[in-house]
Amino acid sequence: MSSEDHSFEITFLPDNVKVKAKTGETILEIANRAHIHINASCGGEGVCGRCQVELREGEVSASPGLYLTEEDFAQGSRLACRAKAMGPATLFIPIESRADASSFKKAAKAEENLTVEERDPLVLQYDLEMTPPDATDNISDLDRVTQALSQHDLQDLDIELGVMKKMPQVLRDEGFKVRASVFFEPPISDLSRPPYGRLLTVSKSTLEATYYGLAVDIGTTSVWARLVDLATSEPFPPVGDLNAQISFGEDVISRIVYANKGDGLNKLQSQVIGTINGLLKRLEDTYPNFRDRLFLITTAGNTTMSHLLVAVDPKNIRLAPYVPPVTAWPSIRPSFLGLDVQSHTVMKIFPSVSSYVGGDIVSGVLAAGLYKRPELTLFIDVGTNGEIVIGNQDWMTCAACSAGPAFEGGGVKCGMRAAPGAIEEFQYEPESKIHHLSVIGRGQPVGICGSGLINIVAELFRGGVISKQGKYIENSCPQVRAGEDGLEYLLSPASQSAGNKDVVLTEIDIENLIRAKGAMFSGYQTLVEAVGLTMGDLERVIIAGGFGSSLNLENAIAIGLLPHLPLEKFTYIGNSSLTGATLALMSRSQWSLAQDIRGKMTNFELSETPGYMDKYMASQFLPHTDGSLFGL
Amino acid sequence: MSSEDHSFEITFLPDNVKVKAKTGETILEIANRAHIHINASCGGEGVCGRCQVELREGEVSASPGLYLTEEDFAQGSRLACRAKAMGPATLFIPIESRADASSFKKAAKAEENLTVEERDPLVLQYDLEMTPPDATDNISDLDRVTQALSQHDLQDLDIELGVMKKMPQVLRDEGFKVRASVFFEPPISDLSRPPYGRLLTVSKSTLEATYYGLAVDIGTTSVWARLVDLATSEPFPPVGDLNAQISFGEDVISRIVYANKGDGLNKLQSQVIGTINGLLKRLEDTYPNFRDRLFLITTAGNTTMSHLLVAVDPKNIRLAPYVPPVTAWPSIRPSFLGLDVQSHTVMKIFPSVSSYVGGDIVSGVLAAGLYKRPELTLFIDVGTNGEIVIGNQDWMTCAACSAGPAFEGGGVKCGMRAAPGAIEEFQYEPESKIHHLSVIGRGQPVGICGSGLINIVAELFRGGVISKQGKYIENSCPQVRAGEDGLEYLLSPASQSAGNKDVVLTEIDIENLIRAKGAMFSGYQTLVEAVGLTMGDLERVIIAGGFGSSLNLENAIAIGLLPHLPLEKFTYIGNSSLTGATLALMSRSQWSLAQDIRGKMTNFELSETPGYMDKYMASQFLPHTDGSLFGL
Repeated sequence: MSSEDHSFEITFLPDNVKVKAKTGETILEIANRAHIHINASCGGEGVCGRCQVELREGEVSASPGLYLTEEDFAQGSRLACRAKAMGPATLFIPIESRADASSFKKAAKAEENLTVEERDPLVLQYDLEMTPPDATDNISDLDRVTQALSQHDLQDLDIELGVMKKMPQVLRDEGFKVRASVFFEPPISDLSRPPYGRLLTVSKSTLEATYYGLAVDIGTTSVWARLVDLATSEPFPPVGDLNAQISFGEDVISRIVYANKGDGLNKLQSQVIGTINGLLKRLEDTYPNFRDRLFLITTAGNTTMSHLLVAVDPKNIRLAPYVPPVTAWPSIRPSFLGLDVQSHTVMKIFPSVSSYVGGDIVSGVLAAGLYKRPELTLFIDVGTNGEIVIGNQDWMTCAACSAGPAFEGGGVKCGMRAAPGAIEEFQYEPESKIHHLSVIGRGQPVGICGSGLINIVAELFRGGVISKQGKYIENSCPQVRAGEDGLEYLLSPASQSAGNKDVVLTEIDIENLIRAKGAMFSGYQTLVEAVGLTMGDLERVIIAGGFGSSLNLENAIAIGLLPHLPLEKFTYIGNSSLTGATLALMSRSQWSLAQDIRGKMTNFELSETPGYMDKYMASQFLPHTDGSLFGL
Repeated sequence: MSSEDHSFEITFLPDNVKVKAKTGETILEIANRAHIHINASCGGEGVCGRCQVELREGEVSASPGLYLTEEDFAQGSRLACRAKAMGPATLFIPIESRADASSFKKAAKAEENLTVEERDPLVLQYDLEMTPPDATDNISDLDRVTQALSQHDLQDLDIELGVMKKMPQVLRDEGFKVRASVFFEPPISDLSRPPYGRLLTVSKSTLEATYYGLAVDIGTTSVWARLVDLATSEPFPPVGDLNAQISFGEDVISRIVYANKGDGLNKLQSQVIGTINGLLKRLEDTYPNFRDRLFLITTAGNTTMSHLLVAVDPKNIRLAPYVPPVTAWPSIRPSFLGLDVQSHTVMKIFPSVSSYVGGDIVSGVLAAGLYKRPELTLFIDVGTNGEIVIGNQDWMTCAACSAGPAFEGGGVKCGMRAAPGAIEEFQYEPESKIHHLSVIGRGQPVGICGSGLINIVAELFRGGVISKQGKYIENSCPQVRAGEDGLEYLLSPASQSAGNKDVVLTEIDIENLIRAKGAMFSGYQTLVEAVGLTMGDLERVIIAGGFGSSLNLENAIAIGLLPHLPLEKFTYIGNSSLTGATLALMSRSQWSLAQDIRGKMTNFELSETPGYMDKYMASQFLPHTDGSLFGL
């Protein structure tokens, strides 16, 4: 029993989850403790208004403000990040405020290649058969093991105290026939240097050869983990969940800001560690006691996620000149980070290129294989931070562009993530001036997700409802009407919408989308030109990341997000960050390639690159000021 | 405030120290908590009777027994290891029960050579001057440091998370001009392998070059520590204290037994860690904040002490075939052991040869330099466990012999350690049949220390009072009388003794000494013969260890403890274990030599060596059955 005064309960609807709370805690904190994730794009600053919840019973300490009108307040609306518990209360979390995890029930379908040429994981196991000691041969246990290892050409391994403590008993219990697990510390700067061996365990030698590695993709929004049998290179199905950090900000910038408030850094670390621990627990159900044999974890994440994982302050990532503390990570023992794994498990964090081209991109490029093919390839990961790689087997350039949150449904009046209720497909018939739409989960519309936004704008642009400038053409159709912020298109009236509110697309929303797609497109252009080529030279486009799975290529080209190329040149490879992390688990040559890829990539800071701003300005049209780029 | 019921006080006289206690704790435990060390040779088993204390006020729960007569009990005597607190009480600790630390006030004088040919410590410092990042050069902080290190030919250093966490701020605070401290992990098995570098800190670069190493000699009885300025190889005066483990057994065997009782292993570890922490605190008084710059600790101790230091179970050290868990130790971070040092401090434990030839002997041989000289040398460390090394620059053999506790004053009726009150010098005049004696600290005699025992027996043997067989010759002098256990020699009557008890030397005491010296001598013989030589071939004898400082060479030869050789062949080198540990601090070639020495030494298990038992039996006379060995 804790001595703290957790004397009342807060009930969260619709799930009816009850959580002990104390006076002064925010509703966001309380919900978070129960793993109920509420959208809080701004990191709990009270300035995004996305964490609205409805007070149904009891009282909370709160007041109306910029993002909460007096009227909404009177009707029970509260901001979860601002409202403080003062006694028992019941709150309803509306669908648009929920950070929904339902999309994790299915893994994304994509062209994923999980075969490695050579099975040579960073951890190998060796069966050691030693002669038990006697009066004429009584060298120390460790010397005996060292001699046995040297027969496998393993010299001078690093050994931790914990291994030495257990070794004498294990040797005797097993009659001096044991299995040694050895991690080969890969070199970071001098890749020709031989790996440094670390003896991770000396354990019972069994007939079963299985031992595990775990690949983890740590996204800003979601975390995916996949177990691999390192003895056979067999991958198992991945499991995923929302990154619990989401309640402290939706994008990396708001997380960095949060990390610098009080104990924020450690708090964010414990959130993502908690998320991974949850995935480990789910894996435990399918693979009982796998942790006893889990020796290696590879993680791939953007630069900020990697820093938050190990609680190295990411502050300088967002301050010019954007110097990250670490891009190439030494090995870590994740048990020290609070991960529920044994002390013998080693973690390798994928190297980043720069503050905004992270380990997820290095991992993705590894998975996409563009480093080994002659074709000039554009690799993109579309998101709040869009990452772009252009290159082939000989060279690679990369850049990150700050597209803003439009692709994630942010900065859009009725925007939401790709969760049930989001309008995804959209068709507009110019003749009849009616539209058809489909919603994720087949219910009534709640809002618009990123891919839906692209589809709607592309269709309305084609249909003559939206101009090249991204403005509604007045009287072009009955759905266009005057709204609070200028003209807007009525997608679904309140009466037919789940939230009992009109679902609309405003001109400001279109403007935000144009900004986002323009940031990406001018990024491709800048990189292509920097190496003396043109967009037409691109032979292949690889789209990675969760967003790509629902992307309609023709519509994305129509609005100018993707370059105007034949559709067969596009490939969607899914969560390539997880794929690359999996490959690196299976093979140390793949890991070495990742280091190589990081070294080969020339990073461009777009904001510092001459010409980028001009290209960006020129891209602020549909599809582009220069129609010739789009065959117009 | 702890919730435990520490509701009364125990007072210890003569120091008048008051300690909080609770019902059921033994007096030994309570005294230990206050750093009052009471002799407990048997490790608190209640079977040695050396921890007698006197109850002056109050009550303790105890009863008479084997080592406590009804009469003594009635007069207030209690065994500290058996008596349990039951309420407030005052106890007097008589001098013979105290583990006295007064001998640590002066360092032993000896021929000590502390110069190394080359200053190349295992930790080196590098001043790094880097260009601060800007928009055109924004590689990660760690990459920048890595590049600067590579200019010193330092590649792929291991870096701990703690260093990465601090690095960004230090770089900016210091304008990217910093000092890097790098530890060079020395190879263990393949000595030709290049060392593996570990970046310990990136810190403020100051004009002052001083940084420290600490050499620690961990003896079963005492612990000595010496600080060294690694920038100049300047050694500072050593500080010493009793090993606090002494309250849990005086010799390694009783410590091993204690380690296997309940939480004994961790308890013994925390005792010795506490002792070293005490020495660190004393050093802090003279060298304020030295811990900020303390990067390296070398420790030399016997095999059991090394295992207890890191809490690796030493159980198998005392079980045939005497296989120690570890002889060559990987590097340890001592902050994890509870040592009050920063996380950047690395510890190297001297390698042992076998279960009973430990790191203190390897270190001693390093200090004695016998590995680099052509003369056939006998190196001995006399104690409860006597260690013997014979060899020269080409080869070395070693053995340990269990001499028993006689040299430490154990197993001797009036025996005690070399502390105030111990009879040390002794002269017997055969004509007048009177003796003269001198006592450590110049007070009245309390008992006999090891070197005193040798001096008394040698003089009485010369004077015709003790026979070749080690028996008293009846009526040879008035001091010989019948005692409880046969004949005994009255050294000092109760009226002239500090403890108000007769101080006597019994035949059983002489027998124990003969056993001890015989064990040593037959050890030398066995090793010499094993390599086809004779005792006469010995060209040099080096005596190491605390015992040697008060050893009268002529008397030690007279009783047959030392070989019959000209006195100029003997050298006393003092605490060579501390000396060797100091040399290894200053120079990685010295550390490498220590590894080499361990590899070169051929260990003999005397009990398993043919001929040893015969030689041992033949040695059970004064000076020896074969008088020709002693020029007789």
